[in-house]
Amino acid sequence: MSGEPKPTVVILGAGFGGLAATRGLRNAAVDVILVDRVNHHTFQPLLYQVATAGLSAPQIAAPIRHVLRAQKNVRVLLAEAISIDTVNKRVTLTDGEMPFDYLIVATGLTHSYFGHDAWAQHAPGLKTLDDALEIRRRVLIAFERAERIDDPVERAAWLTFAIIGGGPTGVELAGTLAEIARHTLTDEFRSIDPSQAKVILLEGGSRILSTYPERLSYKATRQLERLGVEVRVNAHVSGVDGKGISTGGSGRPGEEEGTRIETRTVLWAAGVQATPLARNLPGQRDRMGRALVTPTLRLESAPSVFVIGDLASLTQDQKQVPGVAYAAKQMGAYVARVIASESAGQPVPATSFRYRDRGALAAIGRKSAVAVFPGGVELSGLVAWWTWLFVHIFFLIGFRNRVTTMVDWLLAYVTYQRHARLILKNGLKTVSQ
Amino acid sequence: MSGEPKPTVVILGAGFGGLAATRGLRNAAVDVILVDRVNHHTFQPLLYQVATAGLSAPQIAAPIRHVLRAQKNVRVLLAEAISIDTVNKRVTLTDGEMPFDYLIVATGLTHSYFGHDAWAQHAPGLKTLDDALEIRRRVLIAFERAERIDDPVERAAWLTFAIIGGGPTGVELAGTLAEIARHTLTDEFRSIDPSQAKVILLEGGSRILSTYPERLSYKATRQLERLGVEVRVNAHVSGVDGKGISTGGSGRPGEEEGTRIETRTVLWAAGVQATPLARNLPGQRDRMGRALVTPTLRLESAPSVFVIGDLASLTQDQKQVPGVAYAAKQMGAYVARVIASESAGQPVPATSFRYRDRGALAAIGRKSAVAVFPGGVELSGLVAWWTWLFVHIFFLIGFRNRVTTMVDWLLAYVTYQRHARLILKNGLKTVSQ
Repeated sequence: MSGEPKPTVVILGAGFGGLAATRGLRNAAVDVILVDRVNHHTFQPLLYQVATAGLSAPQIAAPIRHVLRAQKNVRVLLAEAISIDTVNKRVTLTDGEMPFDYLIVATGLTHSYFGHDAWAQHAPGLKTLDDALEIRRRVLIAFERAERIDDPVERAAWLTFAIIGGGPTGVELAGTLAEIARHTLTDEFRSIDPSQAKVILLEGGSRILSTYPERLSYKATRQLERLGVEVRVNAHVSGVDGKGISTGGSGRPGEEEGTRIETRTVLWAAGVQATPLARNLPGQRDRMGRALVTPTLRLESAPSVFVIGDLASLTQDQKQVPGVAYAAKQMGAYVARVIASESAGQPVPATSFRYRDRGALAAIGRKSAVAVFPGGVELSGLVAWWTWLFVHIFFLIGFRNRVTTMVDWLLAYVTYQRHARLILKNGLKTVSQ
Repeated sequence: MSGEPKPTVVILGAGFGGLAATRGLRNAAVDVILVDRVNHHTFQPLLYQVATAGLSAPQIAAPIRHVLRAQKNVRVLLAEAISIDTVNKRVTLTDGEMPFDYLIVATGLTHSYFGHDAWAQHAPGLKTLDDALEIRRRVLIAFERAERIDDPVERAAWLTFAIIGGGPTGVELAGTLAEIARHTLTDEFRSIDPSQAKVILLEGGSRILSTYPERLSYKATRQLERLGVEVRVNAHVSGVDGKGISTGGSGRPGEEEGTRIETRTVLWAAGVQATPLARNLPGQRDRMGRALVTPTLRLESAPSVFVIGDLASLTQDQKQVPGVAYAAKQMGAYVARVIASESAGQPVPATSFRYRDRGALAAIGRKSAVAVFPGGVELSGLVAWWTWLFVHIFFLIGFRNRVTTMVDWLLAYVTYQRHARLILKNGLKTVSQ
C-alpha cells in the first residue's frame, strides 16, 4: 500500500503514559503497536471508589480499542510482555515476538511488600480493577461475617479494618470505609451496629500525605479523625497474617511500642516497585527498581528505548518527578514528539523533558479533601472536595462515564448510598468457610 | 421485648418471589428470615444486557439488606440452604440449622443440559451475575483471539457464536451479539472485520419464542435475520465440545441433517430444571423437577411449606403458570397474605392463587422487540421496543439504577456503544493459552 517502510513503535502499557504517547503519534509516519495485559485503560485515581463500592468497574475503564478506533496507525494487542531485548530490538510476548524500532515502556509499578511476599494474600493492594473488586468483596464479606458471629472478640476482628500506608490511596480508602460503616450501612444489620466498626490507618513515617505540605497533613488527619478513623503514625508494620497485624517493637526512635491489631481485613497502600520485566532493563535503577532515564526519557545504554510514567526515575530541580497521572501524560506526549520528529528526519527537539506541576488532590470522605496547587495555593475541606470532584470527572474518559459518575456522586452526596455493593464469585464460600 | 413468641417465616431466595413475599409480610406479626446465596437481588430480565456489555453488574442488582433496611421484622442471611426437613420444620444451612413455622421456597431454577453435564463448561448458561460476567468475558475474548490468529479456519471458529435455545433469553442474546459484531466494534480491529462474525441461533422446536403467538415468532425471526442472525429451527443439538456443536443426525421427522458448527463460543439458553435442594422436597414433581403445589401454593404433604416462583408447578385454566417475574411476584404477595392472616388467627382467604397474565416482552435488538398483552394485543418492531424499554426501567429496583440505565440506553441508541466491555480476571490467560 505505502512506499517506504515505516518505523515500528511498540508501546507497553495503556495507562496514562502509554495512551498519551499513542495519541501523540497519531499524525506521525510510524506504525504503533500498543500492548496491554488487559483490554481497558483504567482511570487509576478512582480505583478506590470501585474498591469501596461507590462506582462500578466499567465507569472508570474504557476499552483501549474503542478509545483508539479512529487512529489508523495503531494496532492494539491484548498480550503480556515477558522480556525485552534492547540489543536486537525485540520484545517477547506471551504468544510471540515483536520487533521494534522504538520502544516505550510504560508498564507502571506494582505492590511491594518490602520482601514479605507472604503478606500479599492477607493484605491486597490496589493497582488494577481486579484488585479493586477483590477489596470490595473482602470489605462487604467482613460485615456479613460479623453479622453471623456470636463471639464478641471474633466479631470485633471482623469489624476492624486496617489500611497500611498513609499516602493518597490509603487516606482515600480509610475515609471512605469509615463513611460506609457510619452512614451507608445504617439500619441494614440486625446483630451488629456497623458504626461500631474500627478503621485504622497506619503510616510508617511521622505524618500522612508526606508529599503534601505539613499543614495539609495535619488537616487531613483531623478530617479523618472526625470521620472516625484512627490515624497511627510512626507505626512500623512487622507482621501481617490471617488474624491481624503486628506493629513496632523494633525500638526505633519515635516508634510506638510493639502492638497487635486483631483484624480480618487489611488493605495495602504502602509500597510500590517495578515489575520483574522492568527490573531486567539494562542500566541503572533506583531503590524501587525504577529505571533511571536520561533527560530525554531514554535508557542511557539503549537510546531507542524510552521509559515513561511512574516506572521512570527522573530528578528535576533536585526533586523526583512524582508518579502521578499528569506526569505520565506529559512524558507520553513528549516522547511522541521526539519520535515523530526523529522518524521524520527532522531535528529532534533540543529541550529535555520538563515536568510541569499541576498540583495534587486527595479526597478524604464525602465532603472533604486536601489540595495543593503550584504557587503554594492550599485548599482543604468542602472547597477542596468540590475541586477534586470536578477535576476527576473532567479527566475521566468517555462522555457516558462522566455523566453516570456525576449522577452517582450527586446521589451519594445526598443519600450516602453506594450503588455497587455486590459480592460476586465465591462470595458465599468465603463467608461460610 | 414482646409478649407472645411470633411465628418464624423462613424464605429461601431473594428473587422476585422471595422479595415480594418478604415485603408482603412487613406488617405481619411474624419474624422473617430471608436467606440468599448472594448479597443482592438480581433483575434477571436484564442479565443478557450484562452478558453483552451493555450494562454493568451493579445496574441490575440491589443489595438485599439495603432494599429491606426499613423492614424491622426481617433478618437477611447470606447463606445457602442444603436441605429441608419438612417434618421437623428445619432448614439446614451451610453454617447451621434454622427452624421455621412457615417456609417459603423461592430458589428458582438452574440450567439443565438434558443429562449432558459435560456440555456445561463449553456452553455457559445465564442465571446469575457471575454467569453474565463469564459470558461477557468469553464473547470479548473471542474477538481478541480472532484478531491474533492467522489460520482462516481457526479464525472463523472464533468469529462464530452459537446460542442454543430460542426462548426470550436466546433471542435477546443472539440479537445483541449480532449488533455488537456489526455496529459496536466497527473500526476497532485491524486484522479482522467483526461484521463478518456469524451468530447462529439454534432452536429444537419448529419456531423460536414458542410461548408467543405464531405471528410474533415469525416477526422475531425476520427481525433477527435482518440483524444478521442465522436462525435454525428443528435443530437438535447432539454434542457440544471445546471446538463446536454437532446437531441432528437422529433422523427425527422435520429435523435437519447431521451437521457440525465450528465455534469457540457457545451460549446455553435451552433448558432449566430444579436445583437438587428443591428436587428433594417431598411430594410430586414435574418433568423439570419443579414441585407440584396446591392451589394455595403449598406442598400437599407439608402445608406449612410454600413453593413459589418458577420452581412451583401449577396449572391454571389448563395452562401452566409461566416462570416469569410477575408470576413470581404475584405468588409471593399471595403467600404473604395467607401467612399474615393465618398467623394472626384470622380466617385464611378462601380463594386459591390466581395468576393474572400481564403479557410478555422480548427485545430483539437496538430497535426491535415483540410483545403480547392480555386480550390478544400484539406489538412488534420499534413500538414494542420502546414498550420493552420503559417497562424494564420502571421495574428496575432503585432510582439510581433507573437513571443510569436510561442514560446508557439512550446513549447506546444513538451511538451503538456498550460501556461495560471489560475483560477481567484471567482474561489474558484465556487469550494466550
